[in-house]
Amino acid sequence: MIRYSNGLKFTKKPNNSQEKPIKSTSFSHGNRGMNLEQDINLSNEYYKQQGLCLVTKRPTPINVVQVDYSKGAIITNAYFEKQSTTDYNGVWKGRYLDFEAKSTNKTTSFPLANISHHQIEHLKNVTKHKGIAFFIIEFAKLEKVYLLDANYVVDFYENGPRKSIPYKEVINHGYEIKKGYIPRLNYLDVIEKIYGNS
Amino acid sequence: MIRYSNGLKFTKKPNNSQEKPIKSTSFSHGNRGMNLEQDINLSNEYYKQQGLCLVTKRPTPINVVQVDYSKGAIITNAYFEKQSTTDYNGVWKGRYLDFEAKSTNKTTSFPLANISHHQIEHLKNVTKHKGIAFFIIEFAKLEKVYLLDANYVVDFYENGPRKSIPYKEVINHGYEIKKGYIPRLNYLDVIEKIYGNS
Repeated sequence: MIRYSNGLKFTKKPNNSQEKPIKSTSFSHGNRGMNLEQDINLSNEYYKQQGLCLVTKRPTPINVVQVDYSKGAIITNAYFEKQSTTDYNGVWKGRYLDFEAKSTNKTTSFPLANISHHQIEHLKNVTKHKGIAFFIIEFAKLEKVYLLDANYVVDFYENGPRKSIPYKEVINHGYEIKKGYIPRLNYLDVIEKIYGNS
Repeated sequence: MIRYSNGLKFTKKPNNSQEKPIKSTSFSHGNRGMNLEQDINLSNEYYKQQGLCLVTKRPTPINVVQVDYSKGAIITNAYFEKQSTTDYNGVWKGRYLDFEAKSTNKTTSFPLANISHHQIEHLKNVTKHKGIAFFIIEFAKLEKVYLLDANYVVDFYENGPRKSIPYKEVINHGYEIKKGYIPRLNYLDVIEKIYGNS
């Protein structure tokens, strides 16, 4: 039995784990991204409990400048660092999975500026080592989520004619991830289809 | 060409990346652990550059309580959280690797109190999903480092007669990791031997 609205702790970022409806259009970009993140985290929790795969989120890298030990190691000065790899990785049938999740407010294309050069290099490296590398891209206003193989995105990033992937290309080259109640984003279903026989 | 003493940045914890000789016995436990971590990080950097495997360190999870946005997102109140998974994971020949690195000052046994229950559960899960799961254990004073398969450690943790693994059992069930200049800890060599045919 999976309890979604309670019983599940977001130990990494408890102050960001608000449960708000995903359909609201008054959301800031940050909140929408957080909803995608939350949906993926909940799906991962479901997959873990069902024994289907084990995917974890990398903690946000933080550069700690000052720690006050007089109060039991309270960090008093630190700053966020850019993730040099990706948000998620894990194991499925012994195989390595690695992906980045991005949400966009645009309705006609996915801007590649959302992806850092480091992440592109990291995912190229994953592919080189025969890992399964992909992006989960949410078009928040369209309420659509797609899985795009990293090879396609890397190629577009490096050789594409534009700085954003047109939505119709995402449809052509990506795979729609079905939304549901449990799991919220069944991306493993898509992985089975794409990478199951490779 | 690998430059070890310079040119390599520890972006996660720059203030901890001091280069001190590993042989000193005046080190605190924390520093010794940090040397093991540094040796593994440098080895991972070498493996990455040589295209042998891709292993990354998970950032230390930090719970952010307060952020001062007036100075450009400075974290002013936060605290360290316990890592609920392990320090390292990655990909080798398409396969998932996951391991925890621990250093002990003891010379006759490795205390299991160094390992959290969460980490045991995580590594059991990795094994269940056919990932390669292990521990890298340093006996700092003996200047020896061993790789122990997670199954052995989990079994000892759950069913063992004591709360520490005797050194002679580590020798019997583990595999010594050779230290060198490049890579500093050639743990991939051991992985090839143990898991290369499985």
